[in-house]
Order: sequence, then C-alpha cells, then structure tokens
Amino acid sequence: MDIEQALRDKIDNLTKPKGSLGRLEEIALQVGKIQNTLTPHLDKPCNILFGADHGIVEEGVTVSPREVTWQQMLHFAHGGAGINFLCNQHGFKLVLVDAGVDYDFPVEAGIIDAKVGRGTRNFLHAPAMDLTEWAVCVERGSAIVDQVHSDGCNIVSFGEMGSGNTSAASMWMHILTGIPLEDCIGAGAGLDKPGIQHKLKVLKQAWQNYSGADHLIDKLAYFGGYEMVMAMSGMCRAAALGMVVLVDGFIMTACMLAARALYPPVMANAIFGHQGDEAGHRRMLEAMGAKPLLSLSLRLGEGSGAVCAYPIVDSAVRMINEMDTFQVVDVTKYF
Amino acid sequence: MDIEQALRDKIDNLTKPKGSLGRLEEIALQVGKIQNTLTPHLDKPCNILFGADHGIVEEGVTVSPREVTWQQMLHFAHGGAGINFLCNQHGFKLVLVDAGVDYDFPVEAGIIDAKVGRGTRNFLHAPAMDLTEWAVCVERGSAIVDQVHSDGCNIVSFGEMGSGNTSAASMWMHILTGIPLEDCIGAGAGLDKPGIQHKLKVLKQAWQNYSGADHLIDKLAYFGGYEMVMAMSGMCRAAALGMVVLVDGFIMTACMLAARALYPPVMANAIFGHQGDEAGHRRMLEAMGAKPLLSLSLRLGEGSGAVCAYPIVDSAVRMINEMDTFQVVDVTKYF
Repeated sequence: MDIEQALRDKIDNLTKPKGSLGRLEEIALQVGKIQNTLTPHLDKPCNILFGADHGIVEEGVTVSPREVTWQQMLHFAHGGAGINFLCNQHGFKLVLVDAGVDYDFPVEAGIIDAKVGRGTRNFLHAPAMDLTEWAVCVERGSAIVDQVHSDGCNIVSFGEMGSGNTSAASMWMHILTGIPLEDCIGAGAGLDKPGIQHKLKVLKQAWQNYSGADHLIDKLAYFGGYEMVMAMSGMCRAAALGMVVLVDGFIMTACMLAARALYPPVMANAIFGHQGDEAGHRRMLEAMGAKPLLSLSLRLGEGSGAVCAYPIVDSAVRMINEMDTFQVVDVTKYF
Repeated sequence: MDIEQALRDKIDNLTKPKGSLGRLEEIALQVGKIQNTLTPHLDKPCNILFGADHGIVEEGVTVSPREVTWQQMLHFAHGGAGINFLCNQHGFKLVLVDAGVDYDFPVEAGIIDAKVGRGTRNFLHAPAMDLTEWAVCVERGSAIVDQVHSDGCNIVSFGEMGSGNTSAASMWMHILTGIPLEDCIGAGAGLDKPGIQHKLKVLKQAWQNYSGADHLIDKLAYFGGYEMVMAMSGMCRAAALGMVVLVDGFIMTACMLAARALYPPVMANAIFGHQGDEAGHRRMLEAMGAKPLLSLSLRLGEGSGAVCAYPIVDSAVRMINEMDTFQVVDVTKYF
C-alpha cells in the first residue's frame, strides 16, 4: 500500500466522523506524504526573513521611504516588531538575512550578511539585477536553507522586508500569470488611489521599456528583488530537502509562483498560510490552485501570515499522532 | 479619553503600517474593551463541554446512534478524541459536564454530574424539556462558569456532545431567525440526501405539532437540549463576568443566538472561532453580524472550532503587549 493510501486509512479511522476535521485532515495527509510517514512531526520551525532595497522606489511607487528597510531589519533584530511576537508565540527561530539592504548593519545585530548589492537598480530604466547577481541570490538563498535544515529544522516560512517590493512582486505576477498589470497591483504599504494609479503608470512604462531576452529568468531578474530571488531559491531548496514550506502573503506568493515555474515539485511541499484582501493576491493563489489556511486581512509581510498559520499545521500533525483510532477505543464507528 | 480610543491609539502606534494586522487589531481592541485595559491577558483557558441525549433521535434524524454520546464523553475523559489534542496544544483545561446523558458515568471519569435527565423527550410528540428543567439547566450552566472563573479562567469556549443535537439546533435557529426550516438543516454527523429530507420532514412536523405558548423561552425549551441550555446560560454568565467567550460551530452558534436574544450584551464578549461549510451556519452568523476567525471545513463539534481559533486571539493579545510603538524605536512612521 502506498503512503497516501495508508495515511488516508489512518486519518479515516481516527475517532471522529469521516472528514469532520476538514482542512486539518488535508494538511495531515500532505505533511505525511512530504515526510513519507504515518507519524509526521514538526521540528525547529524557522522564519527566514530576507531584506533588500529596490531601485524602483525612486519613482515614488510606495509610501514607505527607503530607510524603513534597514530600520525595520534592525527592529526585527532587537525584537518588538510584528514578526517577533508571532515567532515567540509559535516557537519559531527568526533568521534575518541582508540580501541587499542599502545600509551597513553592525555585526552585533546578528543579521546574516548575504548582501548582493546596496539595493537593485531602478527597473524603469535598467535591469534591477543582472544574471550574475541572480545566480548569487539563488546560491545564497539555497545555502541559508541548507544551514537551517542541518540545524534540524523541517518546516520553514519565508518573509521579506523591502520598501518597494510590492512593485517588483506585481511585475513577477504579471510575467508568470499573464494577468494584466492593472489586476496585479495594489496599495502596498498604504498608497491612496492616485498613488496606485501612479504606480500602475510606472510599472506599465517599465514593462514597455523592457528590451531583454524573451526568457523567464531574464524577465524575473530584470524586475526582481534580491530578497525575492533568495526566497524563491530557498523555497525550492527546502522542498528538495523534504521540508514543509509555509507561504506568506503577496510578495512571498509571487516568489512561490516563480519557484513553481522553475521547479514544479515545490508545490507538493507548500502550505499557504494566508489570503490577503487584495484581489491580486487572490488571483495569484487561484492560478496555483492554492487554498490558504487563514484570511485575517493581514498585510504586514515579514512572514507574518505564514507564521500565524503554523498552529493549524501543528493541529493537523497532532491530530494524526494523538487521536485514537476506532480499533483501540470503545466508540461505535457510525460515520 | 475612553478605553476604546486609548486602545485604538495604542494599536495605531505599534510599529507596522496602520491596519496591517487586520483581524488581530480588531480582536485586540475587543479583548482590551472586555477587560477595560491597554494590556489585556488570557488566563487559564477552559473548554466546557456539555453532553446530553435527545429524544428526537428516535425519529431517525441522525446517523449517530444514541450510545455514541456516552461513549464519546468517556473517550474525552480518557483523552484521544479530537478535542483532547486541541486542548493539549493550546493549554486549555477540558471541563466535561454530563448535562443529561443516558448513562451512569463512573466517578473516576471526572465528568461533572449536572444531569437533568437521561436525555430530553422526543419533541415530535412532547416538549423536550419543561420550564423547570430549563431553569435547572440555566442555573447549572451558570454555576459551572462561576467555578472556572473563580479558578482564574478569563477565556472560555463551549462545546457539546449529543447525538441528535443538530436537529435541536436547527429548531432554535428557525425560532430565533425566522429563516425557513429548509435552510436551517444540514447533514449533521453525515446524513445523505434522503436522510436530510427525512430530517426536514420530521422537524417540519414537530414545528406544526407545537401547541405551546408563543413565548421565546417556551419554544426554546420545547425543542432544546439540556447541553444547549447550559451552554447558552454559561455564555451569558461568562460575559457578565467579563470573560472572553469563544464560539464554536453550528450548535454553539445556535446557543449564542439564543444567548443574544435573552441577554444582548453577551455579543460584546463573543469571538466566533469557525465558520463551517453548511449554508445554515453561515446564515446564522450573518444574522448576528459575526465574522469567524477560521474557515477550515471543520464539523466535529466538541468545541474544536473555538479552541482551534485560540492562537489567533493569543496573537492579538501578544501584538498589543509585545510590539514596540513608534515612540520608543527609531523607525520612520510613514504609514
């Protein structure tokens, strides 16, 4: 009997009406398949948070000034930000990575130095990164996942901090789904309507200006962010290592979309944490057939929506390990 | 400045784009208002699970045989059921109450004896309970909440076990909302289509047979369950004591609907944990303007959907206590 059937049999024999634990049953099945066991376990969860700056902020596409990227990275390091209380609550190690922030962090902040540059170039006029930088991001994102995996982690979420990165993520969404740019952009950190219109104009112009090769990687590199490429690469590596990958909001979903295009098996390991209110996020999720666990109107980034969903994955794993089966207790199996 | 404004100010000054933690911000505001403090806290969470039998099962309205009620109550006491792993995961004390099960539980099972009878009467032909039994249920449900409150609990969820109680809950929904019975019933523990049609026929006939007073309590008592009245009363008492009340699925939502009719302030303390897939549940929630935190296709009962949502309430409370404000950290307030 294959593992999927064995897992289904076990889940169906737990002392509950068949199917009555809904999504918990689906997640238990998925995690059991990922780990190829009837007794899955979640070990040393990590949230890897990549920070980087984006040249496109010069065009006024975000209300968040460039310095917020480094300020928030330091804030994460000191504790007291949104992602900190969630990591503390759910026992996540927070791994901070400088993928390309325009700031020199003090060593004592404990931020991993994977800096590829001091922010990408402005993709309205030039490629955000070249293919060499792309390759460096891929290598470093993968290496960081190798490190947490070798420390015993088997479930990882990815988060980001990068002023302007919703613009880059919207471009990736457009490239990867073909959905018109109008439907790929939103308010980011808090743009008003004229701000969104301006952002759309800038991104449309950037797309028209593109004169690179008609290859996926060329396009993703042209409009991408260092933190996004590292996260995308980290997702692929985590899946290849048999880890569970928790997917956060808009930007990380765009990274999963890219990961899926480049390494389709990644999807088997992906658990989508949260669906935001933006129509663009919903459409991206639909394009992947993804059903996020939560819908709490979060739009913070940092990995918050992924970490917030962790207890549900934990519930699923506890369900399959801790519930009795009808074979061992005296309850009439009526369902 | 009133507490609500003070809470809003505090939440808006946490280091995040305003509103970016969505529902967590709403829950933090609600719990802060309930506790009248800027530093709310969750203490000794309890899931009070009331079990009782229902005379209406004689009419074949459920696939779950009557003995499953007592078997499952013993199973909860031994651990290994669905509600057990959730309570263990989230640090809930599980309080088991025999509201009216047709079984004599051994003392060593640790089930609180609040038995009003050995199951209600069959409401197709007679009142499920009389008004004296109703009053006893109200008193006992309230007393059990007093007990957990005096033990230091300030957040409580309610669960149920009772073969046939979706029929009773559908009658309550019909009585309290005026929604046609057709739209108030569902599959319960797993009825097929003909089974649902039969259930509808029985409930319609029972409604036609009703010849009691045109008063709300008379009707609720006629069709109700001992566990439902105790839960409803417990919800009201918990709210009166300033506790947070976590609301579970279809049956407990019907109890909250009744609680709201009899004691409207209860709603200020209610946090709805889970929205099931049944249209009836969604309509009941809409009737109260309730927005549940989760939607995971659970249909187990036992309080599972309420307990499963607890970590989100905990996240909200941690957010307001653990996050820094812009006053104390060097992050540009751009949002």
